[in-house]
Amino acid sequence: MFKQVIVVRKDLKMDKGKTAAQAAHASLEAYKRADVKDVTEWEAEGMKKIVVGVKDIKELMAIKDRAKNLNLPYYVVRDAGKTQLKSGTVTTLGIGPSPDEKIDRITHNLKLL
Amino acid sequence: MFKQVIVVRKDLKMDKGKTAAQAAHASLEAYKRADVKDVTEWEAEGMKKIVVGVKDIKELMAIKDRAKNLNLPYYVVRDAGKTQLKSGTVTTLGIGPSPDEKIDRITHNLKLL
Repeated sequence: MFKQVIVVRKDLKMDKGKTAAQAAHASLEAYKRADVKDVTEWEAEGMKKIVVGVKDIKELMAIKDRAKNLNLPYYVVRDAGKTQLKSGTVTTLGIGPSPDEKIDRITHNLKLL
Repeated sequence: MFKQVIVVRKDLKMDKGKTAAQAAHASLEAYKRADVKDVTEWEAEGMKKIVVGVKDIKELMAIKDRAKNLNLPYYVVRDAGKTQLKSGTVTTLGIGPSPDEKIDRITHNLKLL
């Protein structure tokens, strides 16, 4: 089984639309960096996506570092700063699609947003 | 200028995480259906995404029909029904990335989610 995990900073208090746009950005960029075989399996299974929340940038970046160490595909979204946030603000992190057992090693203790 | 528009049903009252996951699904599938040249331009410009709300499935499907008539790339997301919604529920619609002037013809009067 495969999944993609999208990690959202809760401390920015982004509204629903902003969160959705940033999550879509994270999802697409992580997807583009994923292993083609993993993507194919993930799509065949229905493209499972989990959206989780973290309390701040420190927690988000710690998860990013662990994704990097495990050679998982990931992408950190920095906001363009055109609406609610300062330009360059880290908002979300996309990881995968990757095998559950790998991605769960770094995201299993995170709570759904 | 290019953009992608993600249309979300407000009547389902999806929470922030659910909305983000469905929007990411719509975004990715519409992206995969878009013109390669449009995608390249959109990426070079910073991947502008607009998330808008509609009141119900009727309004969402009317926009989908107009996207189809204009030959815009689009994708209607139907939920897998594993969590909050009944399986097959239409949740979101992704349109583009496409040129602003084309996509604005059908989405200019929609309000941000």
